[in-house]
Amino acid sequence: MEKKDVLVLEDLLGSNKKIAASIRSRMVERGILGVNLLSSPGSGKTSLLERLAAAMKDTRRMAVIEGDLETERDAERIRAQGIPAWQITTSGACHLDAKMVGRVLADVPAELDFLFIENVGNLVCPAAYDLGETIRCVLLSAPEGDDKPKKYPEAFLSSHCLILTKADLLPYLPFDPERAAREALEINPKLQVFVTSAVTGQGIDDLVRYFDSELAALRSGRA
Amino acid sequence: MEKKDVLVLEDLLGSNKKIAASIRSRMVERGILGVNLLSSPGSGKTSLLERLAAAMKDTRRMAVIEGDLETERDAERIRAQGIPAWQITTSGACHLDAKMVGRVLADVPAELDFLFIENVGNLVCPAAYDLGETIRCVLLSAPEGDDKPKKYPEAFLSSHCLILTKADLLPYLPFDPERAAREALEINPKLQVFVTSAVTGQGIDDLVRYFDSELAALRSGRA
Repeated sequence: MEKKDVLVLEDLLGSNKKIAASIRSRMVERGILGVNLLSSPGSGKTSLLERLAAAMKDTRRMAVIEGDLETERDAERIRAQGIPAWQITTSGACHLDAKMVGRVLADVPAELDFLFIENVGNLVCPAAYDLGETIRCVLLSAPEGDDKPKKYPEAFLSSHCLILTKADLLPYLPFDPERAAREALEINPKLQVFVTSAVTGQGIDDLVRYFDSELAALRSGRA
Repeated sequence: MEKKDVLVLEDLLGSNKKIAASIRSRMVERGILGVNLLSSPGSGKTSLLERLAAAMKDTRRMAVIEGDLETERDAERIRAQGIPAWQITTSGACHLDAKMVGRVLADVPAELDFLFIENVGNLVCPAAYDLGETIRCVLLSAPEGDDKPKKYPEAFLSSHCLILTKADLLPYLPFDPERAAREALEINPKLQVFVTSAVTGQGIDDLVRYFDSELAALRSGRA
């Protein structure tokens, strides 16, 4: 990259960081846990959210912001679960940024427990953009292969939590969840790791407990 | 995006286009078919290349350029098949560009039939960067879901060929290859579609015939 391009990128990221910080402080003040979900296309972000919706919607207040290049498809799937959802279409841009999230946030109810943000399917670029979340989760699906963390390190380095998805397909694949987790932990030893399946429901309760405890921590920090 | 950022991006893409055009004319002059493989992480680009290597290496001269953010893993897998391979690591950049390919090209033998370029795993950004290839193939694996073409249209619009991969997993998934192909063809009616499995070998012979016929067309156009 030329020097002038690096400067433009730094400028972009710097301005994104400021907007993200302001979003985070507004969310924390309202006692809302913001969760940014990041992964390759088709790793199962929307299917995971459908499962979380089924497990959480009767006892917790949740909402979802969906990011995609095109189509309202993912927001429609979430709304079908009875959960309020807003679709951001980036018209070709490869990631969400804090400004896009900030614009939608005006419409999101102030009385909320969890706001999930499903990023554009891309294991590279979204890692560089803070959206004002408190928790970032990277998803890795079994069919993608257990060699991915070291090939795409930034997504794993910048996350708090690793969600291995599509565990129901493990009998048909050479994927080793322990190898994937070990590699990811070598990059980022603080990662919380969950093995899940949106088909069987495996790991969903553990994940809900994790989000609950992070929400409690956020609220006690605020008190 | 701000206007100044759009200008920088146009400048970048314009300069990439010039380098790509020069690569393409050098390759065509040498009678080499350049094939750019583009997909999400873990869609099976390297596994497909391993299968193509086994099918082609005794009767055709092929070489591979591998793109990744980090690690030499993919080039090592290709070399293990007895095929010359060069690894480009982008150190975090989300796509290959023509300049990176041009630098490696100096080392690639001039007497060659096929040069495959495996892009960084990313269904978004690589679509914007011409690498000087003659044929661009987008891969979509069955576990990613048949709803992806319309959500990531540029990759499908800019390709000549769609390779549906991991067909061996179809019995365990809701993926409909016909729906995926239909959606992709609505975006780009000229796409050649192949249904393949690197596990069973399904579709590999058809794909080799396609590459052979494209090579013949390139060489007859040159004559």
